[in-house]
Amino acid sequence: MHQLNSILENKAINNLIATFKRSPMQLNKSHESDAEIIQLNDFNNTKLAITTDSISEEISTGLYEDPYLTGWMVVTVNMSDLAAVGADPIGILISEIIPENFDSGKIIHLQKGIKEACECYNTFVLGGDTNSGEKLILSGCAVGIIQSKKTISRIGCKPGDSLFSTGKLGAGNGVAVEKLISKKSNQIFYKPSARLREGKLINKYASCCMDSSDGFLSTLDQLMRLNNVGFEIVDNWEYSIDVESKLFASQNKIPSWLLLAGQHGEFELIYTIPQELEEEFLKESSENNFSMIKLGKVLPEPGIMLPLYENLLLIDTAKIRNLPLETGTDINLYLKKLMDYDSELIIACYS
Amino acid sequence: MHQLNSILENKAINNLIATFKRSPMQLNKSHESDAEIIQLNDFNNTKLAITTDSISEEISTGLYEDPYLTGWMVVTVNMSDLAAVGADPIGILISEIIPENFDSGKIIHLQKGIKEACECYNTFVLGGDTNSGEKLILSGCAVGIIQSKKTISRIGCKPGDSLFSTGKLGAGNGVAVEKLISKKSNQIFYKPSARLREGKLINKYASCCMDSSDGFLSTLDQLMRLNNVGFEIVDNWEYSIDVESKLFASQNKIPSWLLLAGQHGEFELIYTIPQELEEEFLKESSENNFSMIKLGKVLPEPGIMLPLYENLLLIDTAKIRNLPLETGTDINLYLKKLMDYDSELIIACYS
Repeated sequence: MHQLNSILENKAINNLIATFKRSPMQLNKSHESDAEIIQLNDFNNTKLAITTDSISEEISTGLYEDPYLTGWMVVTVNMSDLAAVGADPIGILISEIIPENFDSGKIIHLQKGIKEACECYNTFVLGGDTNSGEKLILSGCAVGIIQSKKTISRIGCKPGDSLFSTGKLGAGNGVAVEKLISKKSNQIFYKPSARLREGKLINKYASCCMDSSDGFLSTLDQLMRLNNVGFEIVDNWEYSIDVESKLFASQNKIPSWLLLAGQHGEFELIYTIPQELEEEFLKESSENNFSMIKLGKVLPEPGIMLPLYENLLLIDTAKIRNLPLETGTDINLYLKKLMDYDSELIIACYS
Repeated sequence: MHQLNSILENKAINNLIATFKRSPMQLNKSHESDAEIIQLNDFNNTKLAITTDSISEEISTGLYEDPYLTGWMVVTVNMSDLAAVGADPIGILISEIIPENFDSGKIIHLQKGIKEACECYNTFVLGGDTNSGEKLILSGCAVGIIQSKKTISRIGCKPGDSLFSTGKLGAGNGVAVEKLISKKSNQIFYKPSARLREGKLINKYASCCMDSSDGFLSTLDQLMRLNNVGFEIVDNWEYSIDVESKLFASQNKIPSWLLLAGQHGEFELIYTIPQELEEEFLKESSENNFSMIKLGKVLPEPGIMLPLYENLLLIDTAKIRNLPLETGTDINLYLKKLMDYDSELIIACYS
């Protein structure tokens, strides 16, 4: 169950890159890092971090209707990858495909989102490319520098390590249900921030790190497969759920754990800290006013264990992660299948 | 006439970036370089070169039907930007939007084009991103290192400098007419190579450099505006035109100079060499078996002068560059307008 290729997305990526040679300067293998890590010749401890991420499905499905948010997100998703490897950003290049009928007011909001995100992260648009096309699509490519000797990646957690998040989870999926299914309210605030400052501290202490861009359970599932370990989530995990999203889910009769299962993330860093470093790490976090949330611990055997319905349940995260490829663009069917899986768990617990 | 903003594309880019702050680490201003040049702190002469370019309109118009060529081009267009600044490539990240109905055979050819281009340039795919969407769109982001103290950009040519190209011109526009208008033959070979080796030599000698990704006359027009100079093209300029494209144009009654005017380029480097360095430059070029073509010289006053119809004609390159925004996706109308302009020139010469 813990093979990378059990996840259809991993398998698709592996097929795409099967014939490509890896660079001898690249320190990470594929899947192993949120950003690519390049050892520059003769530069001792300095490494280059580089990543690319596009915003396209979020626009075409209607999830990002607001051009300001779209601009904010193309910077944030890429900066979040740099944060996960503890890099200082140098800047971002942005390739924009803009529809011919896209009005100038929308373009102003889009560029404002990009500008304000860059200011928030103290970084810069270095360059870009523009094309016209039928639909708005933004691709970012962020580049940064890792100054420390230690390099953090998705690999390295050991049984007994503690599992943390840089912040509350679930708003990404909350807002997805609100926008795409309920289509009636605007109660969830969704404007994630890349955790660049936290990432530098995490780089000092953590054994592995990955951002929750695809949702919390997908992140854990990938870490499980890469490290051949499992995770046990704490009893009070509901405390880690974004308050507005939890309320919204409850009003719409959606079990709150499904806010961790969907694949529109909140761009927190999910990371593990060796036990012997935990006290010092938390002290330094507190001095920096970071609100780290303890989420569980690393187990020796693969499997993701969530306290649910008075049991410690093994969650079939492969099933959950492969659902989007099964349900395609039908978001209602996707939610129904998640709810069906929840019902199966309830029946198993109480029968 | 030599203002950057007279060109609608420049104006659109300036509007997009108007509110953005520039990075203090960035050595080039906007428009001034094919790739962005970043001075890494404490690294003396070593600079980072980074660029992004997408392939989207070329696919949606049908110009790049062959997935192998599309894959080849996403690597080549980005490597060509690195070549223009004399950088050694580190690698490329590729963001792919793949339609759900795109068959697996096509994907294999697409990835083969990417792989073989990387091998040709001795570089690597470092990472990427995949999304599904309605149409195939590829974005690349290439990163490289400039090791020399000197940095070349689009700025710096002086009156009297000689104008050169790394190779024959016009195949990009030849193949565009063949594919999009004639739709009947396959006589033009189009598989550009990024001139990375040549770029390193050019970096040693040249006063400015830019690739011909938007066609030769657009490149010259941009260099004219950036440097506030003009260019006079040599009498035997027809020698510099790709032979197959020249034959094809002649068979289709298209004046061969229009192969320099269209905006689908051939990814040669267009550069200027100070007179006092020309002999040494040509000697070293010849030792490296490079086939540099002398195309003209830099003039003190703005204007692009082409020997045509027994006269030295001032070409209205602003009119030519702004045509695509006037004619939209109607490629037949675009060619007709170019032919009309040619007729105007003939009438002016012989009346």
